[in-house]
Amino acid sequence: MTPDPITDLAAGVAAGDARAIAKAISLVEDDGDAGRRIVGEIYPRTGRAFLVGVTGAPGTGKSTLVDRLIAVIRREGVKVGVIAVDPTSPFSGGAVLGDRVRMNAHAADPGVFIRSMATRGHLGGLARATSDAALVLDAAGYDVVIIETVGVGQDEVDIVSAADISIVLLVPGAGDDLQAIKAGVMEIGDIFVVNKTDRDGADRVVQGVASNLALKTYEPAEWKPPILKTEATAGAGVDALWSEVGRFREWAAVHRQERRRQRYVSRLRDVLASSFLRYVDSVLAAGEFDQYVEAVASRTRDPYSVVQEIMSRVLPESRVPSPSREALRRPGSRESR
Amino acid sequence: MTPDPITDLAAGVAAGDARAIAKAISLVEDDGDAGRRIVGEIYPRTGRAFLVGVTGAPGTGKSTLVDRLIAVIRREGVKVGVIAVDPTSPFSGGAVLGDRVRMNAHAADPGVFIRSMATRGHLGGLARATSDAALVLDAAGYDVVIIETVGVGQDEVDIVSAADISIVLLVPGAGDDLQAIKAGVMEIGDIFVVNKTDRDGADRVVQGVASNLALKTYEPAEWKPPILKTEATAGAGVDALWSEVGRFREWAAVHRQERRRQRYVSRLRDVLASSFLRYVDSVLAAGEFDQYVEAVASRTRDPYSVVQEIMSRVLPESRVPSPSREALRRPGSRESR
Repeated sequence: MTPDPITDLAAGVAAGDARAIAKAISLVEDDGDAGRRIVGEIYPRTGRAFLVGVTGAPGTGKSTLVDRLIAVIRREGVKVGVIAVDPTSPFSGGAVLGDRVRMNAHAADPGVFIRSMATRGHLGGLARATSDAALVLDAAGYDVVIIETVGVGQDEVDIVSAADISIVLLVPGAGDDLQAIKAGVMEIGDIFVVNKTDRDGADRVVQGVASNLALKTYEPAEWKPPILKTEATAGAGVDALWSEVGRFREWAAVHRQERRRQRYVSRLRDVLASSFLRYVDSVLAAGEFDQYVEAVASRTRDPYSVVQEIMSRVLPESRVPSPSREALRRPGSRESR
Repeated sequence: MTPDPITDLAAGVAAGDARAIAKAISLVEDDGDAGRRIVGEIYPRTGRAFLVGVTGAPGTGKSTLVDRLIAVIRREGVKVGVIAVDPTSPFSGGAVLGDRVRMNAHAADPGVFIRSMATRGHLGGLARATSDAALVLDAAGYDVVIIETVGVGQDEVDIVSAADISIVLLVPGAGDDLQAIKAGVMEIGDIFVVNKTDRDGADRVVQGVASNLALKTYEPAEWKPPILKTEATAGAGVDALWSEVGRFREWAAVHRQERRRQRYVSRLRDVLASSFLRYVDSVLAAGEFDQYVEAVASRTRDPYSVVQEIMSRVLPESRVPSPSREALRRPGSRESR
């Protein structure tokens, strides 16, 4: 029996070895078979970490706030992992100065692990990659895993709302009311933080969020998102934020079981979809998919009939759903036959 | 033979009937069988519209700029469709005041069709829904289709970069350098627009974008993104922007064939993935998927082994790829056996 490097790597992750953790995260980012195997190996050790999603538009001071949060959490003797999702720019090569600064600040502390993750190039999906990276940190004994995204887009909102708690950052400044209302983040925030309160207009932002929240009626058992003020650069308000997270965690342990379940549903569906696409690639002959693409591009075929044909080629014949029968079952299109 | 309402609807779309267009877009948003059939029916009539993606953070003045662009385009006698992707908030009910104002401004003009689209609730994916809605407008004879997103997130960036041209909006104000660099939009902009030039600091933003672009070396035949200044509220610079779009369009007709092809690849893969998920739902017995979810949530099973099992149940037996053989083929994990 030769030793299995993946098993060795999983053991390294379980032992909290930083190089093993970094390597394992790289493998899950690659979304190859090795990444899937490492998740399988570490999976029984996971499920203990508390996932904290932090989102806000560029310039809201997320990095500084997370940095201060790390310091507060570390005082409790708890290990903290951070996954910072940064849109990759070919100009900056994907490395963001702020992250390097932060990494240096905590470089000497083995209880902190910070990893940047590019938004580009994740065939299996960014949400899949961040989830798997969080699992690696979970298995390595990081009690709190912070997932930080530049969140105005749906993808980032999805990632953060898949965490155990979602913290939404806002700042005073032009267009903030718009920022709160248009960004689609009102519905995902478990805690709202108005940062950079040294600027004018902080109270106006707090008021704006409060009046938005007031439009919703809360059941007695429901969580009413608090609105906190911080000045992260000076460290002000960060302790209060962390104790509010703790209060939420206790509440969620009782009331958020369905949200946790939904996270596993999305995960399974994502992995199923990407498995199937790999399978189709393996079944079609070389160049065949390109021919389908060409037919659609030239308007010789429409995309849905092409997909129907591919499905009937790769699935067991008796099982391919007929579109007309499906149409009959759908209430909205019942009149169409 | 009873008449087929979907065929009737497709005829209405082809005739440019506003109610038929609205109904067809609602059907493709629902992602049901009727939506897929309507796309199939209209598809041969599509492929003529020029898709203009416009993205920028909240508060950059996208709505106003698009409104002024519509006026400029209409002077050429060309029909314009707009799909405005707005993150839905349960608080605002998905309706954004600005869009209603805009719709009123052009309500009397049959050559303009504006449609808001919520980011939430698209099972088949937001990119799929916006693409299909653009096809409907294309088939209805809208020569230009503008797709407008609040674009900092990956999803929105993907939607806009799938258009024929991507216009990125920036504004002077705090954190703008960050806005340009962190938002991951530097790589997708075919034209950069610095809007609200009545504010201080517009030239600084232009400089920031220019120095970022200067980091990249352009081949002689490559498109060098111009940086334009507008003050959309006053209508300043909008004519120049539209003529620059025209210059790009001529260039792209020769040089952007691969980008168009890639759009069809993504489309087919998205539709294949969602078809497969529907298929799995139809093959598994009621409650079975929930049992898999439960096994993963309780750490009894890991997600990848569960997916492997589902795949082997729903695919023809001889064809299910073996993970170990796949591992052998992957260079990165060759040493693992």
